[in-house]
Amino acid sequence: MFQVIGERINTSRKKIQAAVTNRDTDYIQNDVKNQQEAGADFIDVNAGARIGHEKEDMKWLLDTIGPIATVPLCLDSPDPAILEMAYGMVDKPPMINSISLEKERFDTMMPFLKGKECKIIALCMDDTGMPVSSDDIIARAQKLVAQLESIGMKQDAIYIDPLVQPISTDSTKGTMVLDAVRQIKNQYPKVHITGGLSNISYGLPERKIINRTFVTLMMDAGMDSAIIDPLDSKIMAAIRTADMLLGNDNFCMAYLKGVRSGIIKS
Amino acid sequence: MFQVIGERINTSRKKIQAAVTNRDTDYIQNDVKNQQEAGADFIDVNAGARIGHEKEDMKWLLDTIGPIATVPLCLDSPDPAILEMAYGMVDKPPMINSISLEKERFDTMMPFLKGKECKIIALCMDDTGMPVSSDDIIARAQKLVAQLESIGMKQDAIYIDPLVQPISTDSTKGTMVLDAVRQIKNQYPKVHITGGLSNISYGLPERKIINRTFVTLMMDAGMDSAIIDPLDSKIMAAIRTADMLLGNDNFCMAYLKGVRSGIIKS
Repeated sequence: MFQVIGERINTSRKKIQAAVTNRDTDYIQNDVKNQQEAGADFIDVNAGARIGHEKEDMKWLLDTIGPIATVPLCLDSPDPAILEMAYGMVDKPPMINSISLEKERFDTMMPFLKGKECKIIALCMDDTGMPVSSDDIIARAQKLVAQLESIGMKQDAIYIDPLVQPISTDSTKGTMVLDAVRQIKNQYPKVHITGGLSNISYGLPERKIINRTFVTLMMDAGMDSAIIDPLDSKIMAAIRTADMLLGNDNFCMAYLKGVRSGIIKS
Repeated sequence: MFQVIGERINTSRKKIQAAVTNRDTDYIQNDVKNQQEAGADFIDVNAGARIGHEKEDMKWLLDTIGPIATVPLCLDSPDPAILEMAYGMVDKPPMINSISLEKERFDTMMPFLKGKECKIIALCMDDTGMPVSSDDIIARAQKLVAQLESIGMKQDAIYIDPLVQPISTDSTKGTMVLDAVRQIKNQYPKVHITGGLSNISYGLPERKIINRTFVTLMMDAGMDSAIIDPLDSKIMAAIRTADMLLGNDNFCMAYLKGVRSGIIKS
């Protein structure tokens, strides 16, 4: 089944930032509970938006979320010191968001990851910027997998993010990433493919139908995880329906549950 | 771009049957105009439901539709005598619906098709029934293509229907047809893939979301045509959006037109 990384606990979201600033425990706990009930498999926690407060905000968020979390957390920070603290505070092996091929991030994240029990999101980004072709995405994914394996990480702990780019700038940006994902999954069937989706619709109107149609296409190519808002019931409905159609939902159990709960509607 | 075969003019639909019985020219002409305006690339015409009246009903329908049709018709009958009459009445080379590997249909349709200027829907059905595996679909498609080429039909006039089957009976029925379509398109890039979609959701609730999610997956596999209701704006929105994401909509022109006309909504 597709794995949903719930993206809501991020201080770049206004209401979350206000709740963090005011140390509003109920607001944060309710949001996490709602995401879990909607089917989140991981809860992303990002405290980066209040400059100078990331460490204390992350600590408070983890203290707040810990007691009610029924799923693992996805610790989202570029700072290994903050990740080190956060890693020590969680009771289930977390997902880490993220490493990339950018030299500075790579060089600081590799020692952090070595020997840790965690999953890792690995971005196909390097110091030249975003990938420019399918082959470029694939080459970057291969480098990331090889490097992460060299420090003992298993392939099924690696979540490659191919970095979705806006279709409005170039009509081949969809097939570029779809082709790459298909080839990465062929080469490494155990490696996961994840990422945000909303970049695909940047600059266009009615973005949500683009995002949910794109996740459907990406699932056919082999994407098996995404960083999304689990409270967006239309994208969740598309994911559950596509999972059923792709043979990942025996007896249509998850689909029928989604219909009964009112998430899946024609 | 994806080709839409508008399915509405079919006497098995109650309102259409009533209009045909009453020779209600306005009703039929308005329905066809609506389908064309919504983006139908072909208008399917099926007069088979009133037993004993197919020939006169088909003749009246073609007389009625002919003057206002701006797109080619898809002549839908199992009876070559009726198809022969209908073929003589249309002013644009039509699509014919359909041939199959069932011996009787095959043996009567091949002489009809020989030398005609038309497109042909070729069903992966034989006298043993529906295909039972991806390989079975592929083998039947190969037979159909070879036979149709042997009477001079070009590959880009052939529309293979792989015959979608209900996911409710077997969770592999989706991947079975997706895998087959991908391989048929690899082998014959010019051959089209078409078909009805609604069988996929047979026996399940909220069928329309299944149908439109499935067409999105099928488009990723290589389906480039379907027999649908063009007035179902949600499936048309999914098709236009997927076409854009698959690189078939330069500068997002068709997508933006769909947004402006109100068909595409988040």
